[in-house]
Amino acid sequence: MLVPTRPCSARFTRSFFAAPGKGTQRLVILGSGWGGYEVLRGIDKKNWDVTVISPNTYFNFTPLLAGAAVGTLEFRCTVEPVRRYTPQVQFYQAWADSIDFKQKSITCTPATPPVGFGESKVPSKSFNIPYDKLVIAVGAYRQTFNIPGVKEHAHFLKDVRDARLIRTRILECLEQANQPDMTEADRRKLLNFCIVGGGPTGVEFAAELHDLLHSEVAQHHPELARLTRISLYDVADSILGSFDSSLVRYTEHTLRKEGINIYTKHNVEKVEAGKLFIKDVGEVPFGLLVWSTGLAPNPLTSSIDDFKKRPRTDRLMTDEFLNVLRTDGTADQDVFAIGDAASVEVNPLPATAQVANQKAKYVVKSLNRLLQYTPSFDEKGNTKPLQDPFRFQNRGSLAYIGGWRAIYDRSKTSEGEPDQNPMSKESGKLAWLLWRSAYFTQTLSLRNKILVPFYWFLNWIFGRDLTRF
Amino acid sequence: MLVPTRPCSARFTRSFFAAPGKGTQRLVILGSGWGGYEVLRGIDKKNWDVTVISPNTYFNFTPLLAGAAVGTLEFRCTVEPVRRYTPQVQFYQAWADSIDFKQKSITCTPATPPVGFGESKVPSKSFNIPYDKLVIAVGAYRQTFNIPGVKEHAHFLKDVRDARLIRTRILECLEQANQPDMTEADRRKLLNFCIVGGGPTGVEFAAELHDLLHSEVAQHHPELARLTRISLYDVADSILGSFDSSLVRYTEHTLRKEGINIYTKHNVEKVEAGKLFIKDVGEVPFGLLVWSTGLAPNPLTSSIDDFKKRPRTDRLMTDEFLNVLRTDGTADQDVFAIGDAASVEVNPLPATAQVANQKAKYVVKSLNRLLQYTPSFDEKGNTKPLQDPFRFQNRGSLAYIGGWRAIYDRSKTSEGEPDQNPMSKESGKLAWLLWRSAYFTQTLSLRNKILVPFYWFLNWIFGRDLTRF
Repeated sequence: MLVPTRPCSARFTRSFFAAPGKGTQRLVILGSGWGGYEVLRGIDKKNWDVTVISPNTYFNFTPLLAGAAVGTLEFRCTVEPVRRYTPQVQFYQAWADSIDFKQKSITCTPATPPVGFGESKVPSKSFNIPYDKLVIAVGAYRQTFNIPGVKEHAHFLKDVRDARLIRTRILECLEQANQPDMTEADRRKLLNFCIVGGGPTGVEFAAELHDLLHSEVAQHHPELARLTRISLYDVADSILGSFDSSLVRYTEHTLRKEGINIYTKHNVEKVEAGKLFIKDVGEVPFGLLVWSTGLAPNPLTSSIDDFKKRPRTDRLMTDEFLNVLRTDGTADQDVFAIGDAASVEVNPLPATAQVANQKAKYVVKSLNRLLQYTPSFDEKGNTKPLQDPFRFQNRGSLAYIGGWRAIYDRSKTSEGEPDQNPMSKESGKLAWLLWRSAYFTQTLSLRNKILVPFYWFLNWIFGRDLTRF
Repeated sequence: MLVPTRPCSARFTRSFFAAPGKGTQRLVILGSGWGGYEVLRGIDKKNWDVTVISPNTYFNFTPLLAGAAVGTLEFRCTVEPVRRYTPQVQFYQAWADSIDFKQKSITCTPATPPVGFGESKVPSKSFNIPYDKLVIAVGAYRQTFNIPGVKEHAHFLKDVRDARLIRTRILECLEQANQPDMTEADRRKLLNFCIVGGGPTGVEFAAELHDLLHSEVAQHHPELARLTRISLYDVADSILGSFDSSLVRYTEHTLRKEGINIYTKHNVEKVEAGKLFIKDVGEVPFGLLVWSTGLAPNPLTSSIDDFKKRPRTDRLMTDEFLNVLRTDGTADQDVFAIGDAASVEVNPLPATAQVANQKAKYVVKSLNRLLQYTPSFDEKGNTKPLQDPFRFQNRGSLAYIGGWRAIYDRSKTSEGEPDQNPMSKESGKLAWLLWRSAYFTQTLSLRNKILVPFYWFLNWIFGRDLTRF
């Protein structure tokens, strides 16, 4: 007997490995990040046979992770399940190991743990997924620049699991520092919170952490609050390198006034448990180290040989229609590549969520149009493309800097020219409002659009929760 | 600069190990469960110098754990932080190892991980906490009856961390079973969800899991939903042994109709990874095993020598004023013991949350009265006690049985006599309403009183979230 719950959406019953319906082409999407999830959202799921392959069962709404990492938001507000769209689409929690572009097939390994029943084990077998069209949106890995100890002793902030580990660690530092018989020197070491990477992620986390320390921690741990310290390190000359310099100065001034220590032109040489080693400075003990700098090549793109790639980052190069380019210069029109794993050859763009999101929308339009495709020809007899080349519209960058303030920079147009619009640079509370409302984008489900402001409100009234589990 | 947030409660600044204020006695509470947390809530914190010692930084609102374990509620709705009450009270995240009743001192070990900075480590040192009055509310451990493999391969359901592990495992089973190239036989094994223990916890979890499988899982995994199976095992003749027999029959009928398999008089002999071994039945493979039966002695109470204890359970015996009894029969009026770790000598009561909660309220009244204590004497010249002996008021037992139905049993009075009140037994939707509103007790903070029904509502509209992290 089915339990009556809520209104159900239309069902699409299918069995494992159903062949595509007659006339339906199979689209495979690799990845569930800003690129892959946006394609999944927008694609015509009735007329495409869609399969998503990702090691994560969810999409991370990354701008909210810093808030979740200090308890301003509940973790589940920052993720959207891929299974929202099943069973109309098929989803496998798996890694894509390699692509055979000639056979049009992807080899995958399950990302779930191997299954075991007593002595007998069911080994995780690789499997192949065929495609007619493919979208590669596998993203990039976290970059440690091969600095020893980073992987073992630092926390990253790219995924909701990272946020949970960080939150747990912050509260653990406080409880450890609260134990009796600890010297004040050791308490200070435990309460030194270090961040490496002065980009928007690092700055936002520093700002959110500052808010936490000066509200709930000050209230519930008054003796410890005065011993806490936040230090932000970057190897560059300034933080927020992609922002307008006046906004950078405003931010540095604001952060320093709040007691956040900013150390630019500082190079981390190695990391041990609870200790940073900084060139020309020496040892810096810490209770928590958040590493929020740099992107490293994805093993899948690194494994692809016959296609053009950017030299250091191994990002797949595409034409302006976002199709991958073979080494001979021709495009593979069956394969799109977007997000951090890709780069338009003639117009390299930064690896940001906004770029990935817009490229995904472009690919969705191309793929959906393909379904009604009637070839049309230009005056030379070449097939006309489905739409104009991809063009990035810079909607600006936002960063939260603490204390209900933010910065907003749209001062360069998509071509890199200065934008004359007077609203192109904003700071302070107006930008903060813009920052908060920018999260009400389409990518968040209605459920989270309700939950996120609800949590902000609850936490404003009652304070952040300090339980640790 | 303090960030303006919400109204702050009154602060009570104190340094580590501040000696009690002149005239203030020190009360130490061991534990933060149904007993300890209720004492913390009600005690006069202005006039008692309160220290709480617990390995958890929070109180578990246990009736909501089964719902959290299937995603009906967010985990944080089911916990209340002890630090709500700091810094007015002192809190140490620690284990109480032993009590010196003569010196009136407790030896504790930090429950936080040892601290390390590079090569140097700060070892976790034991510390001593003196007391004037002590409340022992350390609870009981999970009972495995020494059955091999239970600790390693089963999940418990006593704490929010257990709920999180269970929820993760359920979703992991679904994703594992969804991988291609798996036989139907292996899928069925993975989707066999077993519960050992037919008390309210086991029944409620079976019911909540059934709701999940027949709503969200049926919608998003239609091919897998038909392969799932829930099996509830108990060694006794019937489930819900403490409930009235007509309610038990109603429950068994309801659960069986829903397809939940109930196996009474079944004895688990051992557990391996993914396999149960049942006496006279043989091997039963499973994807998830939840062990919800039995309480085992707490090591602290087991270590106490000079006081009376119940033979098998090691529960500390108290008089009717809830003071612990020495082996010579005299009461230690400085020490109270409540909850699962204690038992009134002349009137043993079941180890339930309701009993612990009422005993805690009784102790709070005694302790708060003590502050205005003027000794008064009876006609024989003995000091009169602060209040009448403890008397348990049976407010009834509730259990959710799925599909918006519950059972409510108040058919025995506190003395064990049949209750003639016609409302004393209820089943169906009325009991369900009672069950839902019973959670609006004082123990939940206002924040959670808002969040819990909000989540029930959200999940009713949008469905439970299926992300796993």
